Amino acid sequence: MRKFVGGILTSLISRSFQLQKHHRSLSSSHSRFLSSTPLLLRRSVSSMADSPSSSLPVTLDTINPKVVKCEYAVRGEIVTLAQRLQEELQAKSGSHPFDEILYCNIGNPQSLGQQPITFFREVLALCDHPIILDKSETQGLFSADSIERAWQILDQIPGRATGAYSHSQGTKGLRDTIAAGIEARDGYPANSNDIFLTDGASPAVHMMMQLLICSGKDGILCPIPQYPLYSASITLHGGTLVPYYLDESAGWGLEISELKKQLEEAKSKGVDVRALVVINPGNPTGQVLAEDNQRQIVEFCKKEGLVLLADEVYQENVYVPDKKFHSFKKISRSMGYGESDLSLVSFQSVSKGYHGECGKRGGYMEVTGFTADIREQIYKMASVNLCSNISGQILASLVMSPPKVGDESYESYSAEREGILSSLAIRAKALEDAFNNLEGVTCNKAEGAMYLFPRIELPQKAIKAAEAANKAPDAFYCIQLLNATGIVVVPGSGFGQVPGTWHFRCTILPQEDKIPAIVNRLTDFHKGFMDTYRN
Amino acid sequence: MRKFVGGILTSLISRSFQLQKHHRSLSSSHSRFLSSTPLLLRRSVSSMADSPSSSLPVTLDTINPKVVKCEYAVRGEIVTLAQRLQEELQAKSGSHPFDEILYCNIGNPQSLGQQPITFFREVLALCDHPIILDKSETQGLFSADSIERAWQILDQIPGRATGAYSHSQGTKGLRDTIAAGIEARDGYPANSNDIFLTDGASPAVHMMMQLLICSGKDGILCPIPQYPLYSASITLHGGTLVPYYLDESAGWGLEISELKKQLEEAKSKGVDVRALVVINPGNPTGQVLAEDNQRQIVEFCKKEGLVLLADEVYQENVYVPDKKFHSFKKISRSMGYGESDLSLVSFQSVSKGYHGECGKRGGYMEVTGFTADIREQIYKMASVNLCSNISGQILASLVMSPPKVGDESYESYSAEREGILSSLAIRAKALEDAFNNLEGVTCNKAEGAMYLFPRIELPQKAIKAAEAANKAPDAFYCIQLLNATGIVVVPGSGFGQVPGTWHFRCTILPQEDKIPAIVNRLTDFHKGFMDTYRN
Repeated sequence: MRKFVGGILTSLISRSFQLQKHHRSLSSSHSRFLSSTPLLLRRSVSSMADSPSSSLPVTLDTINPKVVKCEYAVRGEIVTLAQRLQEELQAKSGSHPFDEILYCNIGNPQSLGQQPITFFREVLALCDHPIILDKSETQGLFSADSIERAWQILDQIPGRATGAYSHSQGTKGLRDTIAAGIEARDGYPANSNDIFLTDGASPAVHMMMQLLICSGKDGILCPIPQYPLYSASITLHGGTLVPYYLDESAGWGLEISELKKQLEEAKSKGVDVRALVVINPGNPTGQVLAEDNQRQIVEFCKKEGLVLLADEVYQENVYVPDKKFHSFKKISRSMGYGESDLSLVSFQSVSKGYHGECGKRGGYMEVTGFTADIREQIYKMASVNLCSNISGQILASLVMSPPKVGDESYESYSAEREGILSSLAIRAKALEDAFNNLEGVTCNKAEGAMYLFPRIELPQKAIKAAEAANKAPDAFYCIQLLNATGIVVVPGSGFGQVPGTWHFRCTILPQEDKIPAIVNRLTDFHKGFMDTYRN
Repeated sequence: MRKFVGGILTSLISRSFQLQKHHRSLSSSHSRFLSSTPLLLRRSVSSMADSPSSSLPVTLDTINPKVVKCEYAVRGEIVTLAQRLQEELQAKSGSHPFDEILYCNIGNPQSLGQQPITFFREVLALCDHPIILDKSETQGLFSADSIERAWQILDQIPGRATGAYSHSQGTKGLRDTIAAGIEARDGYPANSNDIFLTDGASPAVHMMMQLLICSGKDGILCPIPQYPLYSASITLHGGTLVPYYLDESAGWGLEISELKKQLEEAKSKGVDVRALVVINPGNPTGQVLAEDNQRQIVEFCKKEGLVLLADEVYQENVYVPDKKFHSFKKISRSMGYGESDLSLVSFQSVSKGYHGECGKRGGYMEVTGFTADIREQIYKMASVNLCSNISGQILASLVMSPPKVGDESYESYSAEREGILSSLAIRAKALEDAFNNLEGVTCNKAEGAMYLFPRIELPQKAIKAAEAANKAPDAFYCIQLLNATGIVVVPGSGFGQVPGTWHFRCTILPQEDKIPAIVNRLTDFHKGFMDTYRN
């Protein structure tokens, strides 16, 4: 069964020291181009072949094996299939037993009908086209505080030039606003020099991986299951993913004993573990860490000399009254740890929260506890890409400094925000209940984030059928679900899971009025699937 | 003298096979953290030290040596100095012998006062805040064709959701528009499936380097001088820069004999040269390639099995009547070469041209002549970062499909465009003449792009003074220029140059009315410098 753990765990410790060799055996299962000719002969051989495509200089066996090895399930095979089905539906309605494809594979709220926060979009539009700020018609179209905010932001941008490259870390004034927002959130000082604005959180994660990983001997502790950006970026940068398993039976709890065990095991294999990734609220698991637990994690990183990479992009997405988001920066400062004690990077994004502005590609990382020399290196890496997009930078400042009580937009902003968050809580509960009503399915609560990660007990017959189809059993299930219902979810094997268990990730993002139909379609499909494959 | 060639040429072939070793000797000159302790002991030693910063886990000798080795001169030391001077000026006016810092280090037109193209910004604002499209006030504020275009674009975006992640390559409809623009430009078919929209051209270049470079044995032919994005990304991805020298005495001409010579030399050292970078119009050199020359380049790549990486981001920036931009795609198609003959990637950006929208981070690459397997890998790399920002995508579509004769905005658009381009031509000529009037300075014409790259004959006494200050002579000159005048230019050593020659890169972007003052300041400084160091 172990072979189906697949996906992200292919980079497990024991194999990772032999990247080149590993790559060849891996790609041989993928590629029809691979020859058994020795490396040095391959290019000249391929240029001697006479099919048109083989005269091209680039082949799978001559490109970067890390790229070939990299996997990214949330946009993988199943999404390609979904796109094909969508094209078929467009070409011929009625060609499938559903009217539309429902993309529950990725946290992309506005693609499923969520409306943007009006105030944010007003400010962005005004900053894009500032010459209308002085016109009288503008006051009829835009709120007074959006006009005022746009002026403030323009004054923070040198020459009011929203079309110019900014400082490599992002416009100083916008970073000041963000730092003030972090201070207001945490109750501890934040410094705009610690902020690096990025095109969403993903490039920030890549930057840290590129910095920390020298070779396959460098390990990064990652939760399993995890958002596959981490496994993908570790693979792309040639490092080793050191897995720690979240405890599904304890609501996807994070146990320090598990961290210790995996760290020791990695060390015993010669892996130098550099950093710990924590995703809080969890993706794909939805748990929100308790304060006590966070303190233990900080202590662990401090003691073991690990960089704490804190993915906090779902900080606004908490749905249960007994849990609250606390940033790791706040936790560490509350323990008395400062700049000299803990290397901590917190990732934030405009793509998540109640706003869900994925297409704007805004985000930042707050980098604390690194020496000046290392910060210079991070700055240099940011410089090579010049800067992140200014609209995304502006939006990141707005997210960390939304309208306040008394502002003209406050009420409408607040209503939009609460409407989205309370609806997300309702949707999360409805889908969780629906999953738990299915035969052989158990699903932890989504305390936060945007996902449920139900576990499916698949019948042996289904597992055999999957093997015959050369698919992981959960991928087999998800493909059948898509073909039958148009619902796109991602197999657990894309995130990692305890060997022999099967899951899928489903976003809670379809609009509320669509949930009942989704539940019906899911339920019908599942019954049929289980009936077909019941042992 | 050879040691001053510095910068990008540190990755020259003969050294690159010993990256790890090389890094240590390199970083030892930079870093006060480096110990001579063997690798495996170093981390435990540093954790035993008791200064606060040394208890932090990340040190210069434990991070990715490729990051340490990477250099990016256009935002390097000289810009850091400029930022400090600017802060000092703000804190105390009159603290320096100039009123403002003039950033001529980077092609960032709007930072120096260039105004955005109105039509483009109208459409962006409307797409950011589409609910105003139906309001009557909007017609008073926006041109009719910008409203119409915004509707068209929204209809191209699934669910009109400008806040959703798009397809990993970018929104299909926008790619269709871009493909149509390429067809109109070249007179040959273009396919939207070949377009990958990116956050500016830089991430696209990184993506191709990451794809093509497996190890230090993989070489990329780059012009010298070159835009240091290429040297930086080759270093970051662990490859080898194989230099070919442009001929300064022939207007920075590109000689095929030089390409052949360098390719053979690299091969003889065991380097597998994978690709040829051509920047046309040239950066930092400003030359525009002749059609004949381009055909020779295509033939060379075809014959030698090289991927042609064509940096065509300055395609709109041509200032001389006897030269015209031709894309390499058009050239290769006109020679009868199609998908099966030549692997060609063309990079385009919204940051350059007449629009200069650097802050929007929009761009694309057109990828042709790769097998389906390789395209899948490129798609996967794009997927890991989800998508580029949608405003940048929209702007890329506008740049490739601006207003046409008969559209309401055509006249104003056309006037703005011509105003900028003709002024750039005037500025280029004025600065070129000014440089050529300086003692010991010769400067080729900027036929295109945004830069001049004058050569300075520095007196021996200046070279000695630079050596004493541990600076490359051209860096020494540029730092003195900055300190005396507030003008920021980039030393030639950041771009590469023939050993023993010295240059700097200066953008042609200051507004026309500032040029006379700049010329005066430059001239006065240069006279003083030469008088001080005359042999």
